[in-house]
Amino acid sequence: MKIKLKEGERIDNLEIKNMKIIQNKDGFCFGMDSILLSNFAKEVKKGARVVDLGTGTGILGLLLCAKTELSQIIGIEIQKEVANMAKRSIRLNGLENRFQIVNMNIKRILHQKGKRKIKIKGISKHKKAYQLIRKINLQKESFDCIITNPPYKKLNTGMINENKKKLISRHEYTANLSDFIKTAKYLLKDKGSLFMVHRPERLVDIIEIMRKEKIEPKQIRLVYPKVNEKPNLILIKGIKNAKPFLKVEEPLYVYNKDGKYTDEILEIYEKSEREDIY
Amino acid sequence: MKIKLKEGERIDNLEIKNMKIIQNKDGFCFGMDSILLSNFAKEVKKGARVVDLGTGTGILGLLLCAKTELSQIIGIEIQKEVANMAKRSIRLNGLENRFQIVNMNIKRILHQKGKRKIKIKGISKHKKAYQLIRKINLQKESFDCIITNPPYKKLNTGMINENKKKLISRHEYTANLSDFIKTAKYLLKDKGSLFMVHRPERLVDIIEIMRKEKIEPKQIRLVYPKVNEKPNLILIKGIKNAKPFLKVEEPLYVYNKDGKYTDEILEIYEKSEREDIY
Repeated sequence: MKIKLKEGERIDNLEIKNMKIIQNKDGFCFGMDSILLSNFAKEVKKGARVVDLGTGTGILGLLLCAKTELSQIIGIEIQKEVANMAKRSIRLNGLENRFQIVNMNIKRILHQKGKRKIKIKGISKHKKAYQLIRKINLQKESFDCIITNPPYKKLNTGMINENKKKLISRHEYTANLSDFIKTAKYLLKDKGSLFMVHRPERLVDIIEIMRKEKIEPKQIRLVYPKVNEKPNLILIKGIKNAKPFLKVEEPLYVYNKDGKYTDEILEIYEKSEREDIY
Repeated sequence: MKIKLKEGERIDNLEIKNMKIIQNKDGFCFGMDSILLSNFAKEVKKGARVVDLGTGTGILGLLLCAKTELSQIIGIEIQKEVANMAKRSIRLNGLENRFQIVNMNIKRILHQKGKRKIKIKGISKHKKAYQLIRKINLQKESFDCIITNPPYKKLNTGMINENKKKLISRHEYTANLSDFIKTAKYLLKDKGSLFMVHRPERLVDIIEIMRKEKIEPKQIRLVYPKVNEKPNLILIKGIKNAKPFLKVEEPLYVYNKDGKYTDEILEIYEKSEREDIY
């Protein structure tokens, strides 16, 4: 199959089931957070319908198609160019019948619900997106699982020197944490799961909003670079309308004291030994 | 000094600045959680006024008197016998001018605020307590720091075979998490600190209630028995009216792989080496 690359783009090998992904070196490239999140969410059941909110280049969807037997995953991505890369990566891997991309702001999903107009920053009204929402059955309470690697940073924090593409991927520029969680709530079936990766400093916000939206935080795993360092990522699973009881899992360490990847990280990457994982 | 012991009571040596504590083998004896919490809170400043909510036998107050230069700590304890043990421990250590005990339900502190009657489970109206509240200046927004090791378990969970003393210490029988945090909010000055130890499974409740009560969770430290095990305690610091930004600290490990205490635990216990810490 011939997939055209645009300027600045390259094809990277995911080294899982021979999967490939198109990325642009000037844009946001996937990191360990996506790999760890897809691993955290690999319990996604056979036949599940999944939505990836803010899918970017489609990394989470590609990995979940490889690691699980989900029947459908829909990736929502606001950036046209990035969504286009994701679409080509899907074709590159022959996943058209399991993985679809919708190019729009995730906020449009809730927007379709009510009739009132909501002003959505950074985008104009977009009829095609609504038609696609209907076509693709992005309906209320119809998904088993939502997965998301949302922008980590609040607006107006550390935005200096970011190009627009990275700004949108990293900062709550077009949608914030509350939008992501509210949309997850809307899409999830009763007892459906939300899987999220985020920064530890936002844990309080995450927990507060999830509780408010009736997605009970049930499982947390902290990712520590090394045994005696502060965590730099947090994996969290919430279940819609579940009873309160949080399991905090054993830590996930990335590096051993000698600076090499831990056995668990190598296992997640399906490698026996490697120095340059990302 | 002659301090009388009652049946079942014994004097234990805290081995910090020659401190001693009276405990009853049939009641709740202090554990590592109190030691770790007092260490977590040792930043309490010179001259600080502190309240320990649910002080029990007074372990946290005794340790903070040893580790910090606080000017006053007031311990609130509902169980008469236990409060009495704490009072005798204070005399045993000659701390009468820094550490006072009030024998009442912590809920009475908020009760004094409004004029409306609140039914308080398990205790009848108690004039003496109110007189003491006034005498001891347990006033709104007048404390620098609140410390608490509240009951960990919700009511009606695992209550079988507990005697009443242990029931009150371990379960939310006479006051629940919300009562503890609301009371902390009432007593704390603007930017005052709340230090709490709890179980990880209650983290969601803690964060939700702290946020609601404007005590922003600012620092969390998870206590892991060993490097690759799930955490069994959580230390949390909140600051009243602070801006959101959570620091999740490096893990605190209790045991090395060989089953011996870690250097950090030995340091907290001010020991060079010991097998039978508690």
